[in-house]
Formats: sequence, structure tokens, C-alpha cells
Amino acid sequence: MGHDVVTFGETMVRLSPPGFRRLEQATALDVAVGGSEMNTAVATARLGLSAAFVTRLTRNPLGRMVENKVREHGVCTSHFVWTDDDRVGTYFVEFGSSPRANSVLYDRANSAMARIQPGEVHWQSALEGAKVFHTSGITPALSPSAAEATLEGVRAAAELGVKISVDLNYRKLLWSPHEAQATMSKILEQASILFTTEEDTQRVFGIEGNDFEDVARKLIDAFGLEVVAITLRENPSVWNNRWTAIACRAGDDKVYRAPVFDLEIVDRVGAGDAFGGGFLYGYLNEGIEAGVRYGVGISALKQTHPGDLCWATRDEVDRILDGEGLRIVR
Amino acid sequence: MGHDVVTFGETMVRLSPPGFRRLEQATALDVAVGGSEMNTAVATARLGLSAAFVTRLTRNPLGRMVENKVREHGVCTSHFVWTDDDRVGTYFVEFGSSPRANSVLYDRANSAMARIQPGEVHWQSALEGAKVFHTSGITPALSPSAAEATLEGVRAAAELGVKISVDLNYRKLLWSPHEAQATMSKILEQASILFTTEEDTQRVFGIEGNDFEDVARKLIDAFGLEVVAITLRENPSVWNNRWTAIACRAGDDKVYRAPVFDLEIVDRVGAGDAFGGGFLYGYLNEGIEAGVRYGVGISALKQTHPGDLCWATRDEVDRILDGEGLRIVR
Amino acid sequence: MGHDVVTFGETMVRLSPPGFRRLEQATALDVAVGGSEMNTAVATARLGLSAAFVTRLTRNPLGRMVENKVREHGVCTSHFVWTDDDRVGTYFVEFGSSPRANSVLYDRANSAMARIQPGEVHWQSALEGAKVFHTSGITPALSPSAAEATLEGVRAAAELGVKISVDLNYRKLLWSPHEAQATMSKILEQASILFTTEEDTQRVFGIEGNDFEDVARKLIDAFGLEVVAITLRENPSVWNNRWTAIACRAGDDKVYRAPVFDLEIVDRVGAGDAFGGGFLYGYLNEGIEAGVRYGVGISALKQTHPGDLCWATRDEVDRILDGEGLRIVR
Amino acid sequence: MGHDVVTFGETMVRLSPPGFRRLEQATALDVAVGGSEMNTAVATARLGLSAAFVTRLTRNPLGRMVENKVREHGVCTSHFVWTDDDRVGTYFVEFGSSPRANSVLYDRANSAMARIQPGEVHWQSALEGAKVFHTSGITPALSPSAAEATLEGVRAAAELGVKISVDLNYRKLLWSPHEAQATMSKILEQASILFTTEEDTQRVFGIEGNDFEDVARKLIDAFGLEVVAITLRENPSVWNNRWTAIACRAGDDKVYRAPVFDLEIVDRVGAGDAFGGGFLYGYLNEGIEAGVRYGVGISALKQTHPGDLCWATRDEVDRILDGEGLRIVR
Amino acid sequence: MGHDVVTFGETMVRLSPPGFRRLEQATALDVAVGGSEMNTAVATARLGLSAAFVTRLTRNPLGRMVENKVREHGVCTSHFVWTDDDRVGTYFVEFGSSPRANSVLYDRANSAMARIQPGEVHWQSALEGAKVFHTSGITPALSPSAAEATLEGVRAAAELGVKISVDLNYRKLLWSPHEAQATMSKILEQASILFTTEEDTQRVFGIEGNDFEDVARKLIDAFGLEVVAITLRENPSVWNNRWTAIACRAGDDKVYRAPVFDLEIVDRVGAGDAFGGGFLYGYLNEGIEAGVRYGVGISALKQTHPGDLCWATRDEVDRILDGEGLRIVR
Amino acid sequence: MGHDVVTFGETMVRLSPPGFRRLEQATALDVAVGGSEMNTAVATARLGLSAAFVTRLTRNPLGRMVENKVREHGVCTSHFVWTDDDRVGTYFVEFGSSPRANSVLYDRANSAMARIQPGEVHWQSALEGAKVFHTSGITPALSPSAAEATLEGVRAAAELGVKISVDLNYRKLLWSPHEAQATMSKILEQASILFTTEEDTQRVFGIEGNDFEDVARKLIDAFGLEVVAITLRENPSVWNNRWTAIACRAGDDKVYRAPVFDLEIVDRVGAGDAFGGGFLYGYLNEGIEAGVRYGVGISALKQTHPGDLCWATRDEVDRILDGEGLRIVR
Repeated sequence: MGHDVVTFGETMVRLSPPGFRRLEQATALDVAVGGSEMNTAVATARLGLSAAFVTRLTRNPLGRMVENKVREHGVCTSHFVWTDDDRVGTYFVEFGSSPRANSVLYDRANSAMARIQPGEVHWQSALEGAKVFHTSGITPALSPSAAEATLEGVRAAAELGVKISVDLNYRKLLWSPHEAQATMSKILEQASILFTTEEDTQRVFGIEGNDFEDVARKLIDAFGLEVVAITLRENPSVWNNRWTAIACRAGDDKVYRAPVFDLEIVDRVGAGDAFGGGFLYGYLNEGIEAGVRYGVGISALKQTHPGDLCWATRDEVDRILDGEGLRIVR
Repeated sequence: MGHDVVTFGETMVRLSPPGFRRLEQATALDVAVGGSEMNTAVATARLGLSAAFVTRLTRNPLGRMVENKVREHGVCTSHFVWTDDDRVGTYFVEFGSSPRANSVLYDRANSAMARIQPGEVHWQSALEGAKVFHTSGITPALSPSAAEATLEGVRAAAELGVKISVDLNYRKLLWSPHEAQATMSKILEQASILFTTEEDTQRVFGIEGNDFEDVARKLIDAFGLEVVAITLRENPSVWNNRWTAIACRAGDDKVYRAPVFDLEIVDRVGAGDAFGGGFLYGYLNEGIEAGVRYGVGISALKQTHPGDLCWATRDEVDRILDGEGLRIVR
Repeated sequence: MGHDVVTFGETMVRLSPPGFRRLEQATALDVAVGGSEMNTAVATARLGLSAAFVTRLTRNPLGRMVENKVREHGVCTSHFVWTDDDRVGTYFVEFGSSPRANSVLYDRANSAMARIQPGEVHWQSALEGAKVFHTSGITPALSPSAAEATLEGVRAAAELGVKISVDLNYRKLLWSPHEAQATMSKILEQASILFTTEEDTQRVFGIEGNDFEDVARKLIDAFGLEVVAITLRENPSVWNNRWTAIACRAGDDKVYRAPVFDLEIVDRVGAGDAFGGGFLYGYLNEGIEAGVRYGVGISALKQTHPGDLCWATRDEVDRILDGEGLRIVR
Repeated sequence: MGHDVVTFGETMVRLSPPGFRRLEQATALDVAVGGSEMNTAVATARLGLSAAFVTRLTRNPLGRMVENKVREHGVCTSHFVWTDDDRVGTYFVEFGSSPRANSVLYDRANSAMARIQPGEVHWQSALEGAKVFHTSGITPALSPSAAEATLEGVRAAAELGVKISVDLNYRKLLWSPHEAQATMSKILEQASILFTTEEDTQRVFGIEGNDFEDVARKLIDAFGLEVVAITLRENPSVWNNRWTAIACRAGDDKVYRAPVFDLEIVDRVGAGDAFGGGFLYGYLNEGIEAGVRYGVGISALKQTHPGDLCWATRDEVDRILDGEGLRIVR
Repeated sequence: MGHDVVTFGETMVRLSPPGFRRLEQATALDVAVGGSEMNTAVATARLGLSAAFVTRLTRNPLGRMVENKVREHGVCTSHFVWTDDDRVGTYFVEFGSSPRANSVLYDRANSAMARIQPGEVHWQSALEGAKVFHTSGITPALSPSAAEATLEGVRAAAELGVKISVDLNYRKLLWSPHEAQATMSKILEQASILFTTEEDTQRVFGIEGNDFEDVARKLIDAFGLEVVAITLRENPSVWNNRWTAIACRAGDDKVYRAPVFDLEIVDRVGAGDAFGGGFLYGYLNEGIEAGVRYGVGISALKQTHPGDLCWATRDEVDRILDGEGLRIVR
Repeated sequence: MGHDVVTFGETMVRLSPPGFRRLEQATALDVAVGGSEMNTAVATARLGLSAAFVTRLTRNPLGRMVENKVREHGVCTSHFVWTDDDRVGTYFVEFGSSPRANSVLYDRANSAMARIQPGEVHWQSALEGAKVFHTSGITPALSPSAAEATLEGVRAAAELGVKISVDLNYRKLLWSPHEAQATMSKILEQASILFTTEEDTQRVFGIEGNDFEDVARKLIDAFGLEVVAITLRENPSVWNNRWTAIACRAGDDKVYRAPVFDLEIVDRVGAGDAFGGGFLYGYLNEGIEAGVRYGVGISALKQTHPGDLCWATRDEVDRILDGEGLRIVR
């Protein structure tokens, strides 16, 4: 029958010192897993969609840990590509407090996913019957062969009539804006749905606008997209942020908005990925307005949970979208 | 000679994931004990009164843990009713951050305390010489037999000339407002002191007022009470609250107020219970003004301590009531 | 196509103090999940079979935690029965050292699984295409309705031609030997495979023998079983045990034996369950000799892993069965 | 009415690195409290006697922690002498493994207890109605004024007809054998009960014997004691010890023995203190044979519990004395 | 060649309960080391200067821990004075939240450093070639002999032409303002650089001013100083502070200012010490403006790191001084 | 003046799950650093020699952590080669229990040290005045350029008259026996001191003997060595090992032996490296007999400490070599 959403990307083991310690001070590290597209798959599954994730992993305890953590949330892992070679990437997150920003140290070079080759994923069976194929700008940036594999997946989705969703997610450590522009343009030409920020849009495509809506409209026009959603974060401090998003649709001059949330930040990593998952849930079920609302709702809650993943339920998202207050829930 | 304050209710083992984790994410849980009336007894004992707590517990390691933690603060446990049957209730606390409220999951059904029967507590010896008998709206809500046992205690106190103090503490999971009204009215008719919130008062008795004072006056009149204290919490966020209380006395048109505290919340569970304990300490020693001040002072500090219990000393309460600043205390 | 193995029983949240602490001393508890039949399903899945687990759970964070931990190992949870009522059982494990034995405190009464009713599980779809349906003597002991539901499952399996496997697992806190005998006899009359110990066999059925083989033969004869496996533990101390098993088959006078392992015990809870999972893996793939070997191999490794579950891989089991030594594996 | 047993000595805050770390490696320290006579009082209270402990403490969080931990076990603290001066002693325990022995680093100089003065304890009210007054060779070794206060307590007990119990407990860091002999002789001349080891007896009094019984008889004769108990430890390794004791009584030529236990050591600190507590419990209730049995039983279990204190119940002690095996207790 | 900066003072083992626990509640304590002058030496070394620290320590695991932690940051320890006597001081830090201030409990009496004697440090070799000798008002306050040893060091520095830097750091538990004034005046008469706060200046010297500049000028005049820097903290709450500093120079009417930082406080202990280290780094390399900027920059970051020490790099300090925002650093 | 011992190799960040968890189960990892030659340098420094370590590291928090941990023990890091490229290797250690062996998962490919190039280390200044230059068979196995750099160091040492010490340390994941033989032969031809095991000797050089002495003599003859030491481990179980070593010297027919230790294993990783450090200490100070004794003594204690490094002092090593028993050290 196929999964509602199939995502494709790299998942790493994530290591973070507790208690605001610097990495250099660490005597113990909390262990989790994270990666943009896996985070998105988990968010859609938490809300009730059927989701699958596709990646390439080394057959060792770290690779099994990644698979376990994906399965834990009910996301299908049966299209994983396993290898005895290469490595599982790791990254280290330091949690800061003003004026010290959070920071991330990646150790992902030469990972099994970075070394994926076209032809290794059975796209036909992975995508058959799916509603959406989702990836982000990180996946093709991992390596030239990963870019080819991504384009192969995009083409397979297009052929199977599966809608393509993309999170622009520009990573300057992986490629230059110029490289990103070249590859992401090819992907976006096939895509229907784009998640991005004003800043990434400017850096990768040089597109600027009078306001967020203007940027969204220009993106719709540039790539023939169906819908563009832009997330907005204000950082009054490391522990307190303001968070919301808007979305626009081709052929519809309305701007769809979600409530604005004042967040007390436990862990903001993965917020954009959860937004994508919530958006896809709402969009597939009810349309663009539900998309932007569920996207913002689940990603607001995500930032109150430690780890890349969102552990909220749909009921909990509904409650904050309905403006429930801060009394103890008993 | 008797204890200054004797409280009666259920104490559970409290389990909470550290580091803002969801319960679903927990790999370890912090262990403590908590229960409204025990919390109140501990607060009075911390401040210097002699306190006893009465409950019913299963004779197993969890029951012993509860007794240990009560004794740790010098509260007398010699009137505990022990059984080989039933169970020790547990509850799970999740600490949130805006927009995620704290939440509590109770697993207390069929506990030894819920199954207490009238006649099991030796009220005569427990209450002889006491100044105050205190319970809350949670105790009679546990079960019909617990309600009977509570009324039995209330009547014994009345007969022995022991002043009765009640915290309304409405719990919607345990009974309906209608049930609460029926039972709590019977208790309050015997009581002298009531702690409540505007919201619980409205839900249980349908009593509303122009302001807090008005609500307090109506309660005094409705039940022939000696004094009513109302705690006030404003929630600008999960981590930052504003906290104070007022009290009114029968035959006295003054409103007694305490300082207003801007709190950075470590753990707000048990704040109202600590207020009750502080109020009783101040009220028994010096009168209503001291009551509301010590109530607010100790409950403000309680919210900076992890766990249901307040670990402050009277000196520390005095210092914040005197407006001491936030320099490091050396 | 159906799963290779479908198991049925209760899974609880397991809480254990670290560092050999008494429960009464605990300030934190390690969190895991455990339950005999789930443990068995996980063992079969770790080794490579397709496994499903069937249970009834309350729809709350603890219930979701149970489902997550089952899915984490790739065991199918799609036939779980969910309810808004009842509770998720918990149990507390204390780890000892000689002369203090390990101990377990159960708090499982009135759990969602104990309150399961016949008719709630869709046995037809759960068992269709399965090779083995497995349960243990704990499941029917939970309550009369759980016993009925178990018998319903047994009958459905029999009708669908699915082989029935049973672990005798007598629990004296749940029922008397007399009650156990009555119900387990009905189940075993339909069963093909039985896992037991000499002691449980004597207690429940009053069956004794000259040696383990003799006990196994008597069980085969009494219930018309295909195969009986008996696990053997010697306890020179709490931290050092000797562990093995034998198996016998109807119409075959050979005794099948596995290597004897001298164990350094990290956590022996769940050893018998892992044995069952390993036996089913070997038996379905290769026959009785492989059954007893994989059963002992995986359960020996299980006792070196904290938690009820075995985290070994088939390669690791093969290595210890092949007599690999204790050099550091690099 | 008085407590069954009143003990007198110093209690310190105990800090120990987890996981066999060296102190020099520690990034966190487990916190407990310990001190020979307090440990003994807790052991008697765990078994069911009424116990009180007398000490001198500084009024600060560490002093309150000590009082809390004593009260936690139901031991009376109402005769504590509180001061605003001096300090609470600390000690650091490193747990080893063969060939590295456990080690203890004391930081107890100038503690409130070392600075106790005669006249500060209200011996009359502390000892009135007591059956036994217990102290150890550590208390008078703390300082000359502590020695005077100890002798004052011994004299008060003698005058009130309270039996005096002493644990020889020689500490070479606190005083020389010569000093110990002078002071301990004065105390033992008033005492009825002595706990010691062969080694300490030789070091302090130069008394040696053909066997343990011979040593015990010589001590009885030398000081006119009623009963002497000698604990015996064999150390095949740090993690595995053999443990038992014998006792002899004046005017009775029987040697009373307890079972010999093969111990897996979690924490041996406080074993001798628990022996004393168990002995007093058995001796006061049933006589010398019960004394040595309960002494060995509770001290064997103590060594399986982390911390100086024993957390066993009387039932648990009975079970190991009855030879219960090592199956999981469910 | 000599170290750029040589500091002199006491370092203690620091113990702090995690998770905002009260010390009285602690079941584990985080371990670190701290002491004003060591903290300052580490800050200078982190930024790139060559630093040495001089102290006196007991030769035991705690003393070695202190040396290790100093060496860990590349600070030279070869002039430590080691003894087999005395003790290593400890202190306990409780982290609060409004309205509960952070608090510190010292247990430092009779430490090896408090018992240092003149003549024990080889000042000639320790200071030869150094640019700055730094100490604080804590060192001479430890004991009369420590005061003499400090003055000995100050005189040696003066003779060797090493610039003397002092942090006033008044500690009311160690000496009276009167005592502090007498000794600190002698030291300041030889000094070039002074770090202080408005409050300490008033308490020790009775010097007040119209504003911070005025206070600084009066200090320069009173003691013939080259430069005075004053740190400024505003405490809107325990978790949110505002932090900056100013500096003035003899013969220069400019006031040198640093950016003002809004801090989210993880651990403010040691902020002033880090300021001193940053100031010396900037001042020695570039002059007074760089001094006050690096002082404020590194001490702002210090308050986001747990422990007394600053773990920032010079790049990180530069980035916040350059006004980098709060995006995740990847 | 030069350091007594200069070692050269790779140091990685070491991550290990606590509590015997499988890596796949880990929710937190203990952090340490380890690497054969660094471990050896630390062991020599702990015993009192002056030691330096040479490596190549990436300039990031993990690289700084490595440097910090080396400096913490007083080992000189001033000849580290720093780069902005490459990565710091990591490895994961799982602690087992019989029949599960400990296991190590390396993630070291493409580390800064594997990418070291000849010419990057200033051998002249690093080795000038040194007594011994030590490396192991791991360093040249890292990569061809690392092999060249190692040979460059060996040649520089030979030219400067610095004695060369080698630990054979064969790692089958890094190179084949054939490759190892080719390179190690070149190194050993210049070396004076070799540490090895019987098994590695057989695998790399095909050298076998009647007994350990015979193997040692053959190695001395084959490479013209001055001394060969062979460590011997017997593994009755994972937690209990027997450990000792022998050494032989060219032109001396005596076999030098150390005491045999029965070990309770806390962490055996790094035992051989500590042996090397202890041997060099004893050998340089007193000769071959002291070498083998200090080697075995410090490496026996190492196995009782968590982490790769030995935290013993020389006093502690002396005590176990003198046969001190297992009483608590107070």
C-alpha cells in the first residue's frame, strides 16, 4: 500500500554533554540519534501518518542503534542499505546560554551515507504507493555520489507520481552556495513543497523579498512549486526564542499563518525538521492551513524536548494550538 | 503532650525524568515522595513546629521509603496504619518549558490509603494535645471509605477541641465537583482554616467574587470559618511565575497580604502544600499576618527546590521576606 | 505472509535502582520494560526471525514507552489492544550480592493486560501465516479473563495450524499450583513445545523424575508434546552462576544438550525468556539441536546485559557457542 | 520510658566516587553519612529496637544532613548538641578491586564532635530508662575533651544502671596503641559487652591467644566483662570475603558461633558496626546465641548494601540465617 | 624565561549538588576545583599567555586532584609547596533560582595554604622573568602566616621588577574590614593593577564615589596605582544578570568600557577571577582597552560554563566581543 | 635538559557505556582519552619520570580535550602538531562479563595522527636530552605516512643516542602480519627495548619458543635487542584474570620475574601500556629487575582503575609489590 511519507538522508549518532558543559569539559555524553530527514519522518509518524526512512548505514552497534531509534517511533526501516564498510557519522552538540550560542561539531566525513552510490536503494519498492518523498539540502551535499543518489530518488518519485518535498537546509561546511544552487535547482524543479528560511534562500539562491510572503512567492515562481513554507525564529536570548511560520500556495494570494509561540528552549536542534513533519501531516490531511499550524505546533513542542526528535502526541499539539495555558496537566 | 500539627492524607512515590525529558523518553527517573498533607507537615516541621502525619501504607520497600522520607524531616510517623495488602501509589511528573506545561500522571488507584477504613486510625492518641488537624480535599476524594475515615478524623478533632484546617485542593480525576461539594461542605462546617484558590472555589462551590477578598469573605460566611487564605499564581511562562497570597479573617475587615515574589521555577509541585504549612506555623505562633507571610515565603522557596518538599530553614524564609537580594550567600 | 513467531502476554515498566542499592535507598531508578513473552519475541527478532507481540495497554506515556521499546527491536506491535482505562503494570528489581538474592517487587494488579477480555484481540489476523504462537504460564495467571483470552488465542492457533509453544513460568504470587495445573493442562493439551524447569514442573504438575531427561519424557507423555526443553541453573553465588539446558523430542530417545556456561551475572532476569526465543529460532530453522544451542547461547549472553532483553546478535551467539575465548574483541 | 539502646560518637559526611574511580579521577561523589556508633544505632533500629544517637554537630546544611539521615531510620536525635562553631567532618571512600584494597581518607580534625566538652550532653535524660549505652574506641580517640565526655557518659550510664557496650575499633590515625590502652581500659572496666577483632585486641592490649575463644576469655578476665564477641573476616580478594563471629560469656564455657557467610562485597565499610547493632538486638531480646547470629546476619547483609548503613529488615536477616538460597525473591 | 603571569593563592575542592538541589538534599555532588587566583591563572592561559600558579597543598588524592586540574589547562605547577600535614580545603556551592540566591559553604580552615609560612615558596625562581604577579584579598586573609607569605611574594616581585596585580575580593568570613584595610593597603602600595567592585571598595577602604569612574580614580590616587578596573553586575534575577566593567588609568582621563552583556547564568562563581585573567591578557598584549574588553568577554562566557573555571578560547571571546548573534555555531 | 621518556602515537577520545551496557543500549557514554603511547607516557610520569608525548591533533574541542588529559598528568605536550584539518579518532569500549568478552569498536580512520607527514615533528628539539624514545606497533600501522613519520623519529633518536623502546602491539584491523613484519623489523633493528606478548610475536614474526624465555631470547637474537619483556595474562573469566611478566637481557642468562597478581578486573584496556611505562621507570632507575617489577605492579593496579590510564602513585605500586594485604587502607 505504501507509506504516506518516505524520507531520505543521513542519521548520525549525536553526543552532547549534559548540564551546559563544554565538550572539552565532558566526562559523560548523552547519546541520541539525529538527522534532518529522519527527524521529519519521526514527526509525521508521531502525528499519525505512516512513514518510512531510507538511509545507508554500517552494520555495527552504532548502525543498529540508529535503526533501533528510528523503529522506536514506528518509522519503517526496511529499505535501509547496509554495508560492512565506512562508518556511522557522529556529531557533538554543546548547549549554551547567552551570550554563548549553542554549537555543533560534526564528524560525518566518509560515513556510509556519504558514500552511498546510485543504484543501491530500491526506489521502486520504497516509493510505491507513497504520497510524499521528502529530502533536504543536506543529503545531496554529503558527496557527489550522494547527490546522484538523491537525484535518482527524486526522479523515481516523479515517475511514480509521488509528490516531492524539500527542506532547503543549507550547510556551509558541506558545500558552497554555488554548488548548492546548482544541485538544489535541479531538485526543486521536480518538487512541489519547499521548507526554507529567509536566510538560506538568500544564501543559496540570492532571492530576497520585501517580506516573507514575497520571498515565498518568488520561490514558487522560480521553481514552479505548489507550496512554500518559511519558518521564523527571533532570538532574544539562547533560552528564550519566538517561533512561527508562514506558508504560501501557488495560485492563491492568501498568506497562511500559525500562532506565534514564546519558547523556553530545552533543545532547538531539529525544530525545522519537526516543522516539515508537522506540515506534511497537516497538509496531506487537511491542507495548507493545517500544514502550517501543525508544523509550528509540533516544532514548538519539539524545542521543549531534549534530543533531535519530537516526542509530542497529536493531542498535545492540538492543545497548544488551541491556546491551552500553563497550568499543570493532571 | 501532642504535636502542634497533625495531618492526614496519602503519600505516593514520585518518579520524574530529569533534564526536561518526556516520560516516554526516560531512561532513569528521579525518586522522591509526595502528597499534599505530608508536604504540609514537613513544611511546618522545617519551620520549627512539632508535626505528625497519619496515613495508611503497605509494608514493603516503597512503604518504608515513604516512612523514611517523612521521618527524615522530623515528622512523627508513629500513627501510620500498616497493611500487608494493597499498594503504594505512584505518580510521574514531567517538567516542561513554554509552551509545554508541566504534567502529572497518577497511578494511585487501590492504594493502601485509598482503601483505609474508618476505625483503623487511633484518632484519640493521634490528636490528643494537638493544636491543628489538617487535611485536604484529596483525602476524602480517594474513595468512599477514605472519605468516611476523613470525616471520622474531623469529628475526633472537633471533639478534642483541635482546630481543623483544610486545603480545598480539588482533583478532577478523583471526583466530580458535585461529589466534592457534598463532602467538603461537611468537612468545612467543622473547620476553622481554609486554604484555596479562586479557581477551585468556583469549581467546587460555585462561589465567585469581585476580587480575592470577596471570595474569601463569602467562604468565611458560607462555612463559618475563622480564616481563609487564597494563593495567587500568575504564569507568564513555565519557568517564570509570580506568586503571592492573601488572607481574611472572620470579624476583621483587613486583607492580609504577603510580598509578591517573581519566581524562577525549579519545581512548583507542592507549592500550595508548603503555603499551608507556612501559614499554620505563622498563624499558630503570631497570627494571621505572620501566617500569610510565612506561607508565601516558604512556598516561594519551595518552588526553587526539586521535589514536593520544601528544604528551607526559617532563617532563609525570614531573609527573603526581609527583601534580601540575590548576591551569593557566603 | 504472517510473522514467524507471535507471542502474547503482559509487558510492564521495570524500575531498578543502580549500584546494588536497595529500593528503599533509591534516589533514581533505571527504566526499562519487561515481560516474559515480549522478551521472547525480542530474542527471536534479534536472531533474525520475524516476530509480533500481542498485549493490551493503556494509552498513556507508559503504554507508549512499552510499545516503543518493543518496536525498537523490530517486533511488530500492530495487534496491540489499546484502552483509555486501567494502568500499565510496574515492577521493581533489586540486584543483590551473596548472601542477598536479587528480588522483584511487582505492582501489576489491575493492569490493562490483566483486564483483557476474550474477543478483544483479532486472533485471525494476528496469527494468520504464523509458524509459532507462544505464551507463558504468567499470562493466564493474570486474571480469569486473561486466562480466557489466552485459551481463545490457543484455540485460534490450533485452528489455523499454528504450532503452540509454552513457557510454564509458574508465579506463586499470581495463582496457586492447583489453579495453575488446571489451566496449564488445558493449554498444554494443544501445545507442541514446552519450556520449563525441574522445580516448576514439580510444583505445578507434581511430576518428578530421576533426571532432567526423565522429567522431560514424562511431560511429553502427559500432554502429547512434540518437544520439551528444561533449563538448568546452578547458583554458586549471586554473581556467578552455571547455566545450560537439555531438550527431548517425542519419538526420539536422544537427549539434546548445549554447552555449559559459567556466567558472570549482570542481570539474570529474562534468561528463561531469551532461552525460549533462541530455542524457537534454532528449532524453526534447523531443528531441536540448534534449538537448545541457540536457546542456551542467547540466554547466556542475555545475563551479561542489563535489562530483561537480550541485545546480542546472531554472530555473537555463534561465537560463544563456538567456544571463542575472552580476549578483547577489536 | 527511655530507648533500648543509646549510642554516642561522631557522624561524618561520607563522599565516595562511583564506579571504582580513584578519588583523584572523581567528577562526582556519592553522598552518604557514616560513623561507627550511628551505624550501630541504625542497625538496632532496623531490627526493631528503640534507639537514640548522641553527637555534637555544626548547625549548617551538612549537620542537618547528618540529623536527617539518622532520623530517616527512626533513630532519635533529640539529644544532639548543636553549635554554630566548628565543622562537620568528612571522609572519602575509594572502592578497590584486587590487588587494590579499599581506602579511606579522613578529613575529621576539628569537627564539632572532636570539640565536644564534658557537660554538654544531658546524660541523665539521654540515658534514663535505657538498656544499653554503646560507644566505640573512636569516640575517646577524637580529642582529649571527647575522651572526657565519653568517660562522663560511661559514668552516667554506670550510675543509672545502664549496661555499657563498647566496640574497640582502634584507629591508628587518631591515637597510639599506648594512648588507646590507657583510655579504653578505664572504659572497659565499667563495661559489660565488648566487640573486637583479634588484631585490634593485640594492638591495643597486647592480648593474644591460641584461638579466638582464648582471646575472648582473656578479655573477659582482664576487664570483668559479661560478654565478648569477635568478628572474623577472611579476604580471599577485595570482592569476595568470608565473614563470621564468635562470642563468649563470663561463667559459661560454651563458644557461641554464627553461620559463616561467603560474601560478594558491595561495601564492607560499617560491617563491624552493624554486627554490634545486630548483637545488641539479639542479646537484649533472646541472649548471647541470638546476639552473635543477628550480629553476623545483619552485618553480612550490610556488606551487600552501598553506604555505611544496613538497610535490611529483620525478616531478611532471618531468611539468610535460615539458609535461604539465592533464587530471585519475588 | 619566566611565565607571563604568576598567581598565588588557595585552591579548594569544590562540591556542588546538581539540578538545583539543596546541599541537604544531595545524593551526589559534582566535583571541581576552584580558587580565585588559580581561576585567574587558568583564564590567562586559556587566552594564550604562559601562566604559573603557586600554592601549598597536602600530598593526598585531593591535593593531587588540584594539581591535575591546574595542569589540565597548561598552567605551571612546579612551584607548588607540598606537605604531608594539614588538609585540602573544600567548599560547597548551592545553585539557586529567584528568590533563592546561590550560596557557598566554606570548609577551609586549617588548610595547607592557610598554614603556609614565609620562606616556603622559592619566590626568586617562581617570579624570575615574569611580567605580572597576581594575588587577591583572599590569600592574606587566610591566616597571619599566609598574610606574611603574601607580603613576602609582593616584596619579591617588587624587587624583581614584576608588576603586581591584585583583586580586592573581600571575604567577610575570613577577616574584618579593618583587618583587610590594614593588610591590603600594604599590598596595594606596591601594586600597579587593581580589580575591585564598588561594594568591596566601600567596605574595605570606606571609599565611595559619584560613579564608578570616581571610585576608580580615588583608588588610583590613594595607592599610586597604574590601573583600576571595576566590574559591574546587575541582578534582575538569579538566572539573568547584566554584566560589564570599566577601567581607568593613572594620567589618562578616559574611561575604558566593554560591551554590556545580558547573561543567562549557568554558574557565576569565578566570574571576577576570569575578568582578572582576561584583563591581564589584554592589558599585557595591547593595553587597557583590550584589557577591559577581554576581561568582560571571558568573564561573560565563564558564567555560561559550569565550574569556577572558564573553558572559552580566544576565538570565542573575540566572537562575542564582535557581537556575533545566537544562531547555532556549526 | 630533555625529558626522560618521549613517546609517539595516536590518542583518541574513548567512549564507553557504563553499567555493562551494550553500546546499542547506551543512553550515556563515559568520556576519557586513550592511546597506547600516551598511556605509557602517563604511567612513567605517575611514577616520577619526566615524560613528553608527541602526536598530531585537530584544533577543536576534542583535540583540546586530548591535550588537557595528557597535561593533567604532567606529561609535556609542547611538541604536539596541530592542524585545522582531519579529525580526532574515537573508539567505543563495551565492558563484558563471562561469556561475553570486552569489545572495542574503533572509528579512527583519517584522524589527524593517521595523516601525519614526515617533517611535521621537530624531532631534534623533542628528543634532545631524552633517555628513551618509545612507540608501538600501532603508530606505523595507522597509514603509510605515519609509518614514515615513525621511522623518521626512530632515526632521529638513533642519531641523538636516545634509546629506542617499542611495544609490538599488533592490530589486525590496521595491517596484515606481513605488513607489520616488514615495518616493525626496520624499527626493531634500531631498538633496544621490546615489550610484546607470545601471541603477537608469533603472529607478526612467526617466532615461537618452548617457553616465554625462549621467545624472548629469540627476539633478542633476531633484532639485536638489549632487553625483551613479555606480559602474560590468564583469563579464567572476564572479571578475574591472572597477570605477570618476565624479562630477559642480552648477555645475561637470568630470567627476571615479577609477582603474579590475581586481578579483579575493573578495566583491562591499557594494561600493556602501563606495563611499558612501569618497566621504563624501573629500568632507567634501577635496572631490569626493577623494570619488570614496576611494570607488573603499575599495570596490575591499572586494571583496577576505570579508563585507559593508570592513576596509581609509586607508593601504591610499592605496597602491592611488597605484598600488602587487602585490609581497608585508612
